[in-house]
Amino acid sequence: MPNAKLLECFPNPYPRRTYVIEHVAEEFTSLCPKTGQPDYGQVTLRYAAHQTCVELKSYKLYLQSFRNEGIFYEAVTNHIADDLVRAMKPRWLQLQTHWRGRGGIRSTITVTFGPAPE
Amino acid sequence: MPNAKLLECFPNPYPRRTYVIEHVAEEFTSLCPKTGQPDYGQVTLRYAAHQTCVELKSYKLYLQSFRNEGIFYEAVTNHIADDLVRAMKPRWLQLQTHWRGRGGIRSTITVTFGPAPE
Amino acid sequence: MPNAKLLECFPNPYPRRTYVIEHVAEEFTSLCPKTGQPDYGQVTLRYAAHQTCVELKSYKLYLQSFRNEGIFYEAVTNHIADDLVRAMKPRWLQLQTHWRGRGGIRSTITVTFGPAPE
Amino acid sequence: MPNAKLLECFPNPYPRRTYVIEHVAEEFTSLCPKTGQPDYGQVTLRYAAHQTCVELKSYKLYLQSFRNEGIFYEAVTNHIADDLVRAMKPRWLQLQTHWRGRGGIRSTITVTFGPAPE
Amino acid sequence: MPNAKLLECFPNPYPRRTYVIEHVAEEFTSLCPKTGQPDYGQVTLRYAAHQTCVELKSYKLYLQSFRNEGIFYEAVTNHIADDLVRAMKPRWLQLQTHWRGRGGIRSTITVTFGPAPE
Amino acid sequence: MPNAKLLECFPNPYPRRTYVIEHVAEEFTSLCPKTGQPDYGQVTLRYAAHQTCVELKSYKLYLQSFRNEGIFYEAVTNHIADDLVRAMKPRWLQLQTHWRGRGGIRSTITVTFGPAPE
Amino acid sequence: MPNAKLLECFPNPYPRRTYVIEHVAEEFTSLCPKTGQPDYGQVTLRYAAHQTCVELKSYKLYLQSFRNEGIFYEAVTNHIADDLVRAMKPRWLQLQTHWRGRGGIRSTITVTFGPAPE
Amino acid sequence: MPNAKLLECFPNPYPRRTYVIEHVAEEFTSLCPKTGQPDYGQVTLRYAAHQTCVELKSYKLYLQSFRNEGIFYEAVTNHIADDLVRAMKPRWLQLQTHWRGRGGIRSTITVTFGPAPE
Amino acid sequence: MPNAKLLECFPNPYPRRTYVIEHVAEEFTSLCPKTGQPDYGQVTLRYAAHQTCVELKSYKLYLQSFRNEGIFYEAVTNHIADDLVRAMKPRWLQLQTHWRGRGGIRSTITVTFGPAPE
Amino acid sequence: MPNAKLLECFPNPYPRRTYVIEHVAEEFTSLCPKTGQPDYGQVTLRYAAHQTCVELKSYKLYLQSFRNEGIFYEAVTNHIADDLVRAMKPRWLQLQTHWRGRGGIRSTITVTFGPAPE
Repeated sequence: MPNAKLLECFPNPYPRRTYVIEHVAEEFTSLCPKTGQPDYGQVTLRYAAHQTCVELKSYKLYLQSFRNEGIFYEAVTNHIADDLVRAMKPRWLQLQTHWRGRGGIRSTITVTFGPAPE
Repeated sequence: MPNAKLLECFPNPYPRRTYVIEHVAEEFTSLCPKTGQPDYGQVTLRYAAHQTCVELKSYKLYLQSFRNEGIFYEAVTNHIADDLVRAMKPRWLQLQTHWRGRGGIRSTITVTFGPAPE
Repeated sequence: MPNAKLLECFPNPYPRRTYVIEHVAEEFTSLCPKTGQPDYGQVTLRYAAHQTCVELKSYKLYLQSFRNEGIFYEAVTNHIADDLVRAMKPRWLQLQTHWRGRGGIRSTITVTFGPAPE
Repeated sequence: MPNAKLLECFPNPYPRRTYVIEHVAEEFTSLCPKTGQPDYGQVTLRYAAHQTCVELKSYKLYLQSFRNEGIFYEAVTNHIADDLVRAMKPRWLQLQTHWRGRGGIRSTITVTFGPAPE
Repeated sequence: MPNAKLLECFPNPYPRRTYVIEHVAEEFTSLCPKTGQPDYGQVTLRYAAHQTCVELKSYKLYLQSFRNEGIFYEAVTNHIADDLVRAMKPRWLQLQTHWRGRGGIRSTITVTFGPAPE
Repeated sequence: MPNAKLLECFPNPYPRRTYVIEHVAEEFTSLCPKTGQPDYGQVTLRYAAHQTCVELKSYKLYLQSFRNEGIFYEAVTNHIADDLVRAMKPRWLQLQTHWRGRGGIRSTITVTFGPAPE
Repeated sequence: MPNAKLLECFPNPYPRRTYVIEHVAEEFTSLCPKTGQPDYGQVTLRYAAHQTCVELKSYKLYLQSFRNEGIFYEAVTNHIADDLVRAMKPRWLQLQTHWRGRGGIRSTITVTFGPAPE
Repeated sequence: MPNAKLLECFPNPYPRRTYVIEHVAEEFTSLCPKTGQPDYGQVTLRYAAHQTCVELKSYKLYLQSFRNEGIFYEAVTNHIADDLVRAMKPRWLQLQTHWRGRGGIRSTITVTFGPAPE
Repeated sequence: MPNAKLLECFPNPYPRRTYVIEHVAEEFTSLCPKTGQPDYGQVTLRYAAHQTCVELKSYKLYLQSFRNEGIFYEAVTNHIADDLVRAMKPRWLQLQTHWRGRGGIRSTITVTFGPAPE
Repeated sequence: MPNAKLLECFPNPYPRRTYVIEHVAEEFTSLCPKTGQPDYGQVTLRYAAHQTCVELKSYKLYLQSFRNEGIFYEAVTNHIADDLVRAMKPRWLQLQTHWRGRGGIRSTITVTFGPAPE
């Protein structure tokens, strides 16, 4: 089940500068809370770090903690964004999930915190 | 025939936040009102929810209710957009239909309600 | 419902020569016999004509006659192939259906009559 | 030869609303006025209708009326745009021609009338 | 855990004819038996049915039963192929798994039973 | 109208050797003999020359002579192949036409003379 | 060697209107001034004409005059842009060169004159 | 190990003009400082030169000096950007690294100095 | 430097059956023995195992041992193939290297041992 | 002008083994002997070496020696093939030229010496 404690951060090596980091996790899977069927998607994180950056391996393990969780598209997207904002307190963050399609409909959910840099 | 009563909504899990939801229905079909020939297209819905979100399965069944309806491109696009705005009362909504081409001409119709977020 | 009488043929203009004709109908739709949900696919016909060729417009109308028919992938592919073989008596014929995916599984069914030319 | 009388319009079903219609005619051909060689291109029309919309089949026949006309890229693009503006009096219109290349040079000409919506 | 009893078959509607059926399951996931990390792949089944065909929904549920199983690429491919051959006794069967890459290496495993038709 | 006299040949510079020449004419247009509507396609010529090769510019002009001819797909393909075989007497020749689609159906016609080299 | 006198202009047929013309010359070649090795690239010209337009064939011959010239990427881009601005005096002009890569590095140089239309 | 002294500059041939230069180094490799495993990526440099431009071959050798350096994504991106800003003192500079993916996650880091031209 | 001792094998789980395993290592790098410049490529291994299969992680480390080796395309391809044949003694093996291009020339080298299965 | 003396060979490191080498020169240019206009193409060499292999850099310089030569597609292809066969005496060789299109026609010429390996 989702576990925000898996997220580890390291000090931003250039904390005075506003620059953008993007991590695209190509394979994400969770379960549909209604039918129990697996959902497959892609999770794109974009952020401008402040004091800390999320460590990549811990982020991967965190995403894997949703594997057997029944959760709606809208909820999982906001849930991941909230956990990352709490963990990193970034200047700006955008979390986007792309879902490969259930019944012929592909979906994308986009949550944004703070003003986009530049 | 088109039936807006098929649309079901559920409470937006994050109603205070403005975020964007996109559903791309890859296969949509209706009939040409002049010739009776089938039209094939794709329906892209993008919206920022307010109090409610449209439930995906009910949305799919709603789109299927156009299967044997004779209706022009311009009319079907506005019709779907109106039904969704009435059902969800979103902060912002954009409905786009892409048609695969009749007689060598591909068409796209785009209807927007409210100011785009961000 | 499927209607083989819609198929019209015209005399092959070069009946002595073995050459290959391919028609790819990009949009085909029928219904799933179990759930009533629409299926979407592509129908590819390849054949070496003997005395007659199928007329394109009549072939399109024939394919449209499956629009509201509940029929399995395997059955519809063999059904169309049988109707065309009966109507044209070709030297060789191959009928292939590609289905866009139901529940994350794309399918292709291929039926062949007679030895491939060349 | 080019014939604007072929263009037919029908009443815009949603005249109070500003929405965007795009028609991409994938195959357009005219002649080079210097050499008589055929030119091949694509014509993209985007517009926000006011009181009327152009009827698709009449638009296709209108485009075909250039088939044996010797006319420069720049002239044909402005000519089509002018005819459509006169026929529909739209809120906004953009006409773009893409030419597949003569002597290794691909060209695109873009004419716009009025302020773009949104 | 993998469960071959989930596979259901239905009578081949054209048992006298040799024709080819392909099902591409775009999203498959299991676990690496060494590290416990998830593996993601695509499973392609091609076969020429004899007396029975595998029912699509049961096949999907069968593939999902590997979700939390730790199993090597080579083993899972042969395992699925064996289960399908036992369940359907096809004239010919080919099972192919494509893995998206672990440590920068993409893999494909291909198992074949019987002589390919045609 | 189609004019085989436009075809000019030049001596094959390597007549003792069997090698393959392919010319893909990306833009070909003729008319539908039933409706008068334009057809658009691509013409691919592959051949192993004997004593002569077709000169490219003359071949282009020859193909342009079909511009305002009403002729079926099957007929135009065989017609061009026959004219080229008569003009060049090649060891092997294959003529293929690809049509961009009329009413949602794309077509390809393939005519071959002599055994393929290699 | 580069020869601006090859550029010919013709009167803009719609001089009162601001519209955009793009010519993409897909094959351009010059020499590296250091090593003498050939450079290959693509030249994209976009402009809003004022009183005159550049004639396509003369433009092609002008570009060919760089074939055996040793010249740096940055210099050739500015050189072509300057010659065109002098010849046409456009309202706006952008000249972009894309180079296919020397030693694994692809380059793009972009020069702009005047404010972009719209 | 990274060596900024490898960077050589030459005088900008058009120092009064603001124009944009882009160099995409398609193959870049360094090492992960934690595991010692190689990282592979692409480095995109975009800048508006002031008095000097970076010489391409020296830039390539500079990038190669990271080959056996253990360094994080975020650090290497800022490091290269800093070295280039110090060497060229450009009006504007953007440095972007795209990483092909470690453990199924692709990353992009973007650092920008100064206001973007136009 | 290349080290065949890094290769580890595990028992083929289905040693009686001939099936095909493919591993595509997307990022491989070595050095040009003449200039010392890095070469970048892709290594594709296809084989039909006999008693043993190569373990993926050990194979990855083995490929990395070429990172700072100066070696020609032809030599490295045969070298890797020889090492794998010695380590696994497969029924059939094919080793293919694709090189991204040095001086505008892309190369592929293919070495095969034993008759291809099927 | 074409100069076969530029071709240098080195001893095949594995002369007992039949394996295949492919070099794709992505940018080749010569002149049309009729009009003097530049032709642009790609040259693909595939061969199974016997005692010697062609050295890559010398091959590149050899191809550049055609830069200002007026020569037909058919002639240049056979010319290069003949020079390489004379220089390397390979077990098998195939030389293919792809031309980007003159007047809307793309061409490919393929010359083969000896029986293909495998």
